[in-house]
Amino acid sequence: MARSVTILGAGLVGSLLAIILRKRGHEVTVYERRPDMRRAAIGAGRSINLAMSARGWRALDLAGLRQDMEALAIPMYGRYLHQPDGTAAFQQYGRNNEAIYSVSRGELNKKLMTLAEQNGVTIHFDQRCSRVDVSTNTLFLQQPDGTETSVQADLLFGADGAFSALRNSYVHMDRVNAAQNYLEHGYKELSIPPLADGTMQMEKNALHIWPRKNFMLIALPNTDGTFTCTLFLPFHGTPSFDKLGTKEEVTAFFREQFPDAMPLMPTLLEDFFENPTSSLITTYIQPWHYQDKSALIGDAAHAIVPFYGQGMNAGFEDCSILAGLMDTYGDDWATILEKYDESRKPNGDAVARLALLNFVEMRDKVADPAFLQRKKIEKELGRRYPEQFISVYEMVSFSHIPYNTALRCIEAQDRLLGQIMTDGDFFANADDAGYTGKLDQWMNEYHKAVQQLEFENEA
Amino acid sequence: MARSVTILGAGLVGSLLAIILRKRGHEVTVYERRPDMRRAAIGAGRSINLAMSARGWRALDLAGLRQDMEALAIPMYGRYLHQPDGTAAFQQYGRNNEAIYSVSRGELNKKLMTLAEQNGVTIHFDQRCSRVDVSTNTLFLQQPDGTETSVQADLLFGADGAFSALRNSYVHMDRVNAAQNYLEHGYKELSIPPLADGTMQMEKNALHIWPRKNFMLIALPNTDGTFTCTLFLPFHGTPSFDKLGTKEEVTAFFREQFPDAMPLMPTLLEDFFENPTSSLITTYIQPWHYQDKSALIGDAAHAIVPFYGQGMNAGFEDCSILAGLMDTYGDDWATILEKYDESRKPNGDAVARLALLNFVEMRDKVADPAFLQRKKIEKELGRRYPEQFISVYEMVSFSHIPYNTALRCIEAQDRLLGQIMTDGDFFANADDAGYTGKLDQWMNEYHKAVQQLEFENEA
Repeated sequence: MARSVTILGAGLVGSLLAIILRKRGHEVTVYERRPDMRRAAIGAGRSINLAMSARGWRALDLAGLRQDMEALAIPMYGRYLHQPDGTAAFQQYGRNNEAIYSVSRGELNKKLMTLAEQNGVTIHFDQRCSRVDVSTNTLFLQQPDGTETSVQADLLFGADGAFSALRNSYVHMDRVNAAQNYLEHGYKELSIPPLADGTMQMEKNALHIWPRKNFMLIALPNTDGTFTCTLFLPFHGTPSFDKLGTKEEVTAFFREQFPDAMPLMPTLLEDFFENPTSSLITTYIQPWHYQDKSALIGDAAHAIVPFYGQGMNAGFEDCSILAGLMDTYGDDWATILEKYDESRKPNGDAVARLALLNFVEMRDKVADPAFLQRKKIEKELGRRYPEQFISVYEMVSFSHIPYNTALRCIEAQDRLLGQIMTDGDFFANADDAGYTGKLDQWMNEYHKAVQQLEFENEA
Repeated sequence: MARSVTILGAGLVGSLLAIILRKRGHEVTVYERRPDMRRAAIGAGRSINLAMSARGWRALDLAGLRQDMEALAIPMYGRYLHQPDGTAAFQQYGRNNEAIYSVSRGELNKKLMTLAEQNGVTIHFDQRCSRVDVSTNTLFLQQPDGTETSVQADLLFGADGAFSALRNSYVHMDRVNAAQNYLEHGYKELSIPPLADGTMQMEKNALHIWPRKNFMLIALPNTDGTFTCTLFLPFHGTPSFDKLGTKEEVTAFFREQFPDAMPLMPTLLEDFFENPTSSLITTYIQPWHYQDKSALIGDAAHAIVPFYGQGMNAGFEDCSILAGLMDTYGDDWATILEKYDESRKPNGDAVARLALLNFVEMRDKVADPAFLQRKKIEKELGRRYPEQFISVYEMVSFSHIPYNTALRCIEAQDRLLGQIMTDGDFFANADDAGYTGKLDQWMNEYHKAVQQLEFENEA
């Protein structure tokens, strides 16, 4: 039986969910707080990009959008590390030339909205939901003229982001647990333009990182030849955004810390002082649903920091999981929402944790020679034991293994790699019969530990 | 320079704070959501009681209310433990006959309100604050007729409890961290009346506990001869409030679990089905203040579970600490609020944790013979080493040692008592010269560890 579905938010997750639901015959209406980005000049000239990986692509398949987006996506096969002395090195992500893909958030969102409308979804723009009466499923929408209207929803999804009105309404209910944590770091977007002839100024097919222990600069390629740079830096302390108040301070900081990047950034000072310094939030909430009436999805359920490039991927995977549950449970929405909450919440918590951990990896560990050595050994282990070993990074970015399993594998992998790296030169010994026997045994122990984790995850 | 102070909430902490500020010459206006409990018949006949301990009394001294309240307070010198077989035993709290005091929340609140008004505080009742514009310090108050008025505050305190409007407004600001966690247990109030001649049916000067591992019943004495009983039980599972849906189920449960209490509760079934099942929340937020304009205090800053009897005591200690900072920093409210936040927030977090830990102690550990033995040894240590040893319970309830120090002493005390209890019979060996030498050494190690903790706390 088709339901009448209301979705808060026409962002990436809301629009994709609308398409998936509409394709299954449900009536779908979306309320979006902002004006229509396809008409208004929102963020024109400023392309904020995303890193699309396996989980995102699978969900785009459900919408039939993979091919369209592949044409606009730039594969990044590894990290391009920029050291303080101006030297640089490339670190491949996968063992089989896998990539994560730089995609324009705006272009993807526009395509999703248009596809949703083509499929019969109605999107109402400039409708800001102030709150939801959860027990009656009534939304209160602020109109551009300042008046408020109310809408009665049958089945409601909150895909309205980190500051979701539906989430906020859940928070005020009895026995709802919730948390919000901000990082001590903020971020600011900057830009590297192409040369006059259109040539890109750095390696195109890589995610560029300037790791500086407690802070970092990163850059992702765009199809127009630019790179979008993001500086992640503490708000307070030294160095910090607080300490970068003048053009002289910014210039000196970039000259010292990012000597190879600065000459590529002709608009550094304008960008720095015109663009906002934004904060980074992680949110948790439990439960994610209310009876058979409403549920949270994407950032509304689990806003995370961007350091694993998994925010959109996790939200899209929420959609895939929901679609799978609709296949299994048909019209039984009480069960669909309950199973969605039960199976997905631990993975939402896990991807939040993975994202926080990867910040330390990106800004600090990647520059450590021991880390580089470990990555090489991991790749070799993956070649030798393809059935038994896959690195956590590969699990998260190139597989559909639950985030919670990936998170829990960190400890087992740390133990395994610790054993290997404190036992002589892996690459010198790797073909010695005595050593490979020991390695086989360690690998068996590791594999058993991981199987146990997977068993516990499913239990 | 006197400021015009606005306080949200005329509960225990709001009323006490009003008195303290008024005595220092500030103009004080309080907005209270409920009607005036001195006029309306709120909770008439149902006295909910509190356990007042050292921190609470010190703050009452500031208001000059100690004597008045002592006349209405019932000292409880220890726990009276009721076992499932109907036997009972008394455990003293302190080494010097210290007590915690059962006090009627309603009576205390009424006295505080009246004293506040006598000192020149204005209290407006039936004024529900819906939100605060934090940057402009504007409160929006819902009037009984449904209209909304706004008030501009000079200096604002949110003493409006766990669901504080000021806290909620802070939560929506950038870079405010917050969390709310509910227990899986709920509670329900029940009652034990006196006999027809007014005689109390159980020992008056004790806190009665029926510890049953995952749940418990407690009872506190009232001046009218009744005991207020509270059943703490999971919402779901076995046993749980879910499973107590009929009179037969409640009767069977009480007969099995509380055989000595049930005959004393003639209105058990009416109470059980008429009184609500309530939830238990712990909240955290950071920061606790905004510039020199506003601050949270009491439950609004740190709502905690009731198992250490420290909710009101901690809120009152917030007031004492604020008063001390006013002494030190005079009119410099930016500094007063900053120091209040900085020094008090770790103690708010600590008392929240202590309260959660004490739930396990009350409902489970107190019934364990090893726990009873440990309490006896602790008392003896306190006698022998009065300068060096004070149990965590005594720190929390009978001292003004910061909660954070008390919390951090748990580990050191666990280590010390573990050493003692796995080294033969303490009381048999305690006068043996070899043993006391060893004990002296352990005690010195313990004392050093604690001094280090105190040093770190102050640093």
